[in-house]
Amino acid sequence: MSPLTRVTLADVAASAGVSPSTASRALHGGAGVSDELAARVRAAAEGLGYRANRNARSLRRGHDEAIGVAVEDFTIPFFGRVVAVVEQAAHERGYGVVITCAGSGRSEEEAVEPLLSRSVAGLVVATGTAGAPEGYLADVARELPVVQVDAPGPSAVSDAVGIDNAAAGAQLTEHVLASGHERVLFVGSGRAASTVVLRAEGYAATMRAAGLTPRCAWLGYLPGQVPERAVRALREAGDVTAVVSGVARTTTGLVSAVRALGRRDLAVAAVDDLAGADAFDPPLTVLEQDVEDMGARAARLLFDRIGGYAGPPRHEQVALRLIQRGSGELPPPGATGAPVIPGRRRAPVA
Amino acid sequence: MSPLTRVTLADVAASAGVSPSTASRALHGGAGVSDELAARVRAAAEGLGYRANRNARSLRRGHDEAIGVAVEDFTIPFFGRVVAVVEQAAHERGYGVVITCAGSGRSEEEAVEPLLSRSVAGLVVATGTAGAPEGYLADVARELPVVQVDAPGPSAVSDAVGIDNAAAGAQLTEHVLASGHERVLFVGSGRAASTVVLRAEGYAATMRAAGLTPRCAWLGYLPGQVPERAVRALREAGDVTAVVSGVARTTTGLVSAVRALGRRDLAVAAVDDLAGADAFDPPLTVLEQDVEDMGARAARLLFDRIGGYAGPPRHEQVALRLIQRGSGELPPPGATGAPVIPGRRRAPVA
Repeated sequence: MSPLTRVTLADVAASAGVSPSTASRALHGGAGVSDELAARVRAAAEGLGYRANRNARSLRRGHDEAIGVAVEDFTIPFFGRVVAVVEQAAHERGYGVVITCAGSGRSEEEAVEPLLSRSVAGLVVATGTAGAPEGYLADVARELPVVQVDAPGPSAVSDAVGIDNAAAGAQLTEHVLASGHERVLFVGSGRAASTVVLRAEGYAATMRAAGLTPRCAWLGYLPGQVPERAVRALREAGDVTAVVSGVARTTTGLVSAVRALGRRDLAVAAVDDLAGADAFDPPLTVLEQDVEDMGARAARLLFDRIGGYAGPPRHEQVALRLIQRGSGELPPPGATGAPVIPGRRRAPVA
Repeated sequence: MSPLTRVTLADVAASAGVSPSTASRALHGGAGVSDELAARVRAAAEGLGYRANRNARSLRRGHDEAIGVAVEDFTIPFFGRVVAVVEQAAHERGYGVVITCAGSGRSEEEAVEPLLSRSVAGLVVATGTAGAPEGYLADVARELPVVQVDAPGPSAVSDAVGIDNAAAGAQLTEHVLASGHERVLFVGSGRAASTVVLRAEGYAATMRAAGLTPRCAWLGYLPGQVPERAVRALREAGDVTAVVSGVARTTTGLVSAVRALGRRDLAVAAVDDLAGADAFDPPLTVLEQDVEDMGARAARLLFDRIGGYAGPPRHEQVALRLIQRGSGELPPPGATGAPVIPGRRRAPVA
């Protein structure tokens, strides 16, 4: 933003000593504004050339700064939550936000390319779960500040923010093992999702450390297909007593499948909180990523670099929080007595 | 987009006779590209000045066209779905998309203002559920093409796309009345949400036409408060046998409250489909808005006007589809025999 060439509503409000929303009402005839106040705000707007500025807009092309945000899929709430925080942070600094989706069959490069041609001052790239081709991003990051969000881990070419994916898989697995489960299935979207593969690895390592056999089922990326594939996976793994879902994309379909099969005894624990998790029956136990903190950290790292910071790529991890709602605490069938203390291991199955 | 000054990956791909993703892999060393093909794509890129163009970018400010999209709240999947479709439509026409949120306590004007200062060619405004001050939008629409999405109805100042809100409220109400319910509660977010108020009016008119008494509860806009307020509303309306939820924002909290109160007998039907609706117990009956069609129509109306159309404000409605999953078909306690035929009214309560 160039404060010398652009007068905003906030400037008018500050000049008149009122809030921006009061200034808006005063200028546009909203309720609750006295005549005297309205006159004061109009005078401030005129003094600053607020209206003149807008009228001149179509003649004089805008040169305000913007950042670009490329997300994997806007229809997944995770990305909307990241974008909401990044947009707020950009807004506070006078930057606009230009967006693209990698969805609709576009590659990451096809999603990022339109942002580059729009002269953005930096990029937030949240397409990493589709497998970031760092060769391409390295190219971009040589020219522009870039932050990868929902990154599988540290990046060699840019700043990156994410969770400890292996630890997330391990923590949920330990949680269900602590209730006495021994036959635990991991479900995820697919092997192209590098974060989910890492969560599966954390699950598998925890199973093996407890002397148990890891089993994974990959349910795909299409919401319409997940329930059916989950039914098949649960049938094939007929003797499991607990399931760990590695990503929101597979969780609701999994819960639908558990319902469809009448498997009310099955413990379910999932990475990512869901809007409806509290309304499931039983309510869903989740390991929540601090998505808002992820967006806030991404914005901070990006504006750091836009501001001139030129150090080596940084990596920041956000916190995970286990929310025990019931589904993940169901004991295995036939279990008696108090649940096993978390952290304690049962003897491996013979 | 100015094709005379900007070379895109798509241009390179077309020139080399390959798909954009193959062109991307060829230029950046991805898998599955022969040496001969890679050389052909690089030659096409050089011939078109593709790399030179990107390198010149920071010296020569971009002048590509963009449209602005102001949404109420990016964390609500409805808006992400609209934006995904609008972004795709804009992308196909070579336009970028600049976004802002009206959330974070910003007024609609504060959300739209930063878009105006960025010289957008037109605006999609999806902040209407907070109550669009048309006085302000009229100002904007005199200068720029504007389309209101999720609009409560026709607009005097701009093109508008939405559903028939009163019909939506009426249809869901008729659906639960057809199962024999007579004491039906409507829940919605708040009276500032003009679309939800219209849905409540459709509900109330249907109740009155059946000789029944309408009752509404307003649960607010904050997800954290909705379940608790829903519990209180259900307690206060102790004898209701069915609930119609007017908007996604209140539905999951309502279902949580129904669960918390152990009211498994209560029929629930809701406007808006939810990602987890199939996993609720019972699965949730919803009246689905065709959100993707809403985004597509908004984009078409907007680019029509950007292309020069100057007729009076148009209003388009998208389809509604009732998805019967079980929760909305629960009969009232003590009901016997076949469900009442839809459209037939039972006698009013004495």
